Order: sequence, then C-alpha cells, then structure tokens
Amino acid sequence: MGGDLAPAVPVAAAAAAVAEHGLDIVLVGDPEALSATGSTLPFAASRGVIGMGEEGALAVRAKPEASIRVAVGLVADGRAGAVVSAGSTGATLAAALLGLGRLPGVRRPAIAAVLPVRGGGAGSGAVLVDAGGSTEVQPEGLLAHARMGVAYARARGVAAPRVGLLNVGTEAGKGSDLARAAGALLGGLTGFTGNVEPDGVLRGEVDVVVTDGFTGNILLKTVEALAGGGPDYGGPGAAVLLGVAGTVLVAHGAAGVSELVAALVTAEAVASEGLVDALGVLFHQTS
Amino acid sequence: MGGDLAPAVPVAAAAAAVAEHGLDIVLVGDPEALSATGSTLPFAASRGVIGMGEEGALAVRAKPEASIRVAVGLVADGRAGAVVSAGSTGATLAAALLGLGRLPGVRRPAIAAVLPVRGGGAGSGAVLVDAGGSTEVQPEGLLAHARMGVAYARARGVAAPRVGLLNVGTEAGKGSDLARAAGALLGGLTGFTGNVEPDGVLRGEVDVVVTDGFTGNILLKTVEALAGGGPDYGGPGAAVLLGVAGTVLVAHGAAGVSELVAALVTAEAVASEGLVDALGVLFHQTS
Repeated sequence: MGGDLAPAVPVAAAAAAVAEHGLDIVLVGDPEALSATGSTLPFAASRGVIGMGEEGALAVRAKPEASIRVAVGLVADGRAGAVVSAGSTGATLAAALLGLGRLPGVRRPAIAAVLPVRGGGAGSGAVLVDAGGSTEVQPEGLLAHARMGVAYARARGVAAPRVGLLNVGTEAGKGSDLARAAGALLGGLTGFTGNVEPDGVLRGEVDVVVTDGFTGNILLKTVEALAGGGPDYGGPGAAVLLGVAGTVLVAHGAAGVSELVAALVTAEAVASEGLVDALGVLFHQTS
Repeated sequence: MGGDLAPAVPVAAAAAAVAEHGLDIVLVGDPEALSATGSTLPFAASRGVIGMGEEGALAVRAKPEASIRVAVGLVADGRAGAVVSAGSTGATLAAALLGLGRLPGVRRPAIAAVLPVRGGGAGSGAVLVDAGGSTEVQPEGLLAHARMGVAYARARGVAAPRVGLLNVGTEAGKGSDLARAAGALLGGLTGFTGNVEPDGVLRGEVDVVVTDGFTGNILLKTVEALAGGGPDYGGPGAAVLLGVAGTVLVAHGAAGVSELVAALVTAEAVASEGLVDALGVLFHQTS
C-alpha cells in the first residue's frame, strides 16, 4: 500500500515475479483496494498506510494495522521470508525495529544500496553502507557499517570484499573529523583498502564503501540522478536494511514494475543466502 | 608550478589565454623551469612548490618562496587581479589566508564550484558552497555559505538567485542535525526555497546549493565522475575561494589546457565583476 503507485504497480510486479521467477508472494493491503486490482494472489489484510510525510517511529506505533506493520509481522511470525516495501523508508525502518528488533550486538541498523560500477555487468556493483538509515553516526558506527557491508558483499558472491572509506581524498588523514577517526578504526579490518573518492567507487575499486547515512544518501541520489538506478544497470532494485532481525528491503517510492520485480528477486536471494544469520553470528561473536 | 602537469600545461594555457582572450598574464615559477618551456610571457620568480601530500597550513609557512606564496603576494601587492592555481587546494587556501586574510565578518572561507545543470548552456549552473573548503561547519557557517553563494551567483548574472539547502529529502525537518538547524536559520534569507535533493540541483531548481565542505566535495566529485567537469559543459574551469580578501581560483590538479584557459577567463571575469568587494560590503554590514 506504500509508495507512489500502490496498489496497482506493486500488484502487477508481484504477479510478474510469480509468473517469471516462480516466487511465492503474499500481498499485504486493504482487502477492498487489492480486490479492485483483480489480483488473485494470496494476501494478508491490513488497514491503512503510513504516508511519506509522517514521522516513521511515531506513525508505526499509532497504526498497528498499517500495511508495513502487518508485512513485517509475517516475517516475525515466520510466515514470510522477507518484506519488500516501496513506502516510506523511515516507516519501514521503524516498523522493522519494532516488529523484528535489532540483531544482538548491532547498535544501529543501516541501509545498504548497490551502486553501479563502470563496465560491471549484472551482479556487479559496490555495496554502499549507510545509504540513508541514520544521519548521525560515530566512528565505531562506521566500523559496524563496514562489517555489515562485508557480510552483504559476501552474500552477493564476493569472496574477499575490498572495503573503502568514502572520503574527499585518498591520502590517510584526509577529510572530516569523523572520517579521520573512522579511518584509524578501520585499519584493522580485513579487506580495508583505505580512503576512496567517488570516482574510485564508480570505477569499481572497492566492493564495499562505508560512510554516514547523510553523505551516503547524497551519493546514492546523485548517482541515481546521473547514471540511472535500479534495472538500468541490472541492479538489485531495492536497498537492504542491515542489522535488523529479518530480511527487509526498501524500493523507491516511484519504482515501476521491473524495478519491483528486481527487488522481489533480490529479497528472495538475500533471504536464501542467510545474510541475516551471517550478520547475527558476526555481531554476536564480537559484541 | 603546482598540479600534475606543471609547468608545461599551465604555460601553454597562459599563452592560449593571451592569444585567444587578450588576457594579461604573469607566470609564477622557478626561472629555470619556465625558461625550459620556451615561454616568452612575463614571469615572477619563485622557488619550489608545495606538494599534494603536504599539510597546507604548515607548508605555506615553511616555504615563503613557493610559487603559490609568490602568486598570492602579487594579488596582495596589487600587481595582479587574481590567482589561478592547479596545485594543492589546501595549500592554496592556506596561502590565501596568510597572504590576503579573510574579509571582515567572514569566519571561514569556503570554496564555490559551479555544478552543471541539465539543459543549461554556457554560463548556467548551480553554485555549490562549500565544495571542499572546510569539512567541519556549524549552522551559522551554512548561512554564511548561502550569503557568499548568492553574491557569487549575482556576479555570474543571476539577478535573484534561488538558494537550496542540500538534503536527503525536500520536506522541512529532514536530514542531519546540522541540516535541520541550518534549515531553520536559512528561513529568513531572501531567495531561500528550502531543502533540495541532488536530482533537484541537477535539474536546475536552484542557483545556489548550500552544504558543508565534506558533503559538497563528495557531491562535486560524483558529478564530475559521471557528468564530466570543466569545459565539457562550458563551465568555469575552476572553483573560487569565497571569503578571502582577493580573487583566488583553484583548478583541478590534472586540468588540461582548455580547462585552465576557462579558469583564467573566469578569474578575469570574477575580478572584473568586483565579487570580492561585494562580499566585503555584504559581510561588513552584517558582522
């Protein structure tokens, strides 16, 4: 029910993902609105939606029957393996925290998007953490981002991910106070290659690029504005919440059918690859 | 003498700017190196250069005869109207602060670059402040950036510049602590249109985009990596230091002849338009 084009486009994408990829999909939405689309897919009934303008944490508490709350509940109950939402990112994150909780040892969840890389084919790209989950972060938070990004890159098939710290110069000691402190902390991480500038990211110099959620979201939106996002580069169609105890993906509010199909396929893959379990082990060991 | 291609490419650009645009140019450099290029342009003798890896503030104090120190001195003495450097941005900023000082009322200088705008011709674009001058800034600093950016946009011929605050969403109250506090302060500025996302900037929704130097540098470098910089879009070829008491421009270290010619033409225009005087009046009035 969330996003700019619901319910028609998400319903069409679900039907396409079932037909073309054999996915097992449960729609979540107002029964009247879903039935008006003519969909014959199974559904779970919800009531109402959290709008883009609402403050996520407040709204998810005030609306226990909203579609994102019900959808997350399906994952919490084991009746679904993953959620894909094109609704408000803030509301999706808040609903995931409320309904699934954090993985032990994770202080703050982050959002991982995959940036296109020049000359890279389908499945390539650099995992960007944080792409917009939390705008305020400490150096230790960037280390957690790096570790979560490595786990996601491994789940995407990269055996030994190279990790870069997004910065305004490649020399050590460059950048903001946060970047300098994080650079020192990241020195001990396997695969850390040092600072990386935007051009290096887009040339494929790293498999994981680490930054705060404000800078990461600006980077992601600039790349999307200029290079196109989602299916244009065979991308994952959606960003993944890392650090919550379940698989949750956020697509663009204006995502079309092909982008949502890609998001559903990615969700199935992420859930099958056991990313949440891998993250749980990783953070439990070191917390 | 600074930059990756000195002295050959800067000397060639200076000769082209004299021949094609009638500019009055003084080279600054080691006499032996300049004479080896075969240049017949007037020159001021310097000794040595500050490298890209050196810490700017320390290096400019340790090397009073370095080319950037001598070049800034020509402006301080009134023997030149502007400096263009392809050397280290940090060293150029430090030399400008040491040799020219801040304008009264300016706490920290900033760097203004011009971002290309979709469908815009030569002379169009959005003035980005700060493009990398200072990575740590307070909300009041972003207000100063906005005022400096407005003065630069006016000098570029925009009668009533529209000003946007770079943010991760267009709704008021979005973004980092810094962005939220700055948004409240900017509310009283003539021409402020609210938050702007990267796509809005690149679609030409604002004439000035305000952010901190870390985020601004990442935005600039991402756009340059994907859309090309400098002469590809008829751009200014260099960024302008705002808030120092003289006209100082910084070109890319790897700038070629056409980009450096554009930088020299922009430097002449900025100096002729009286931007430094306009900024001096603006900040003196309100300090």
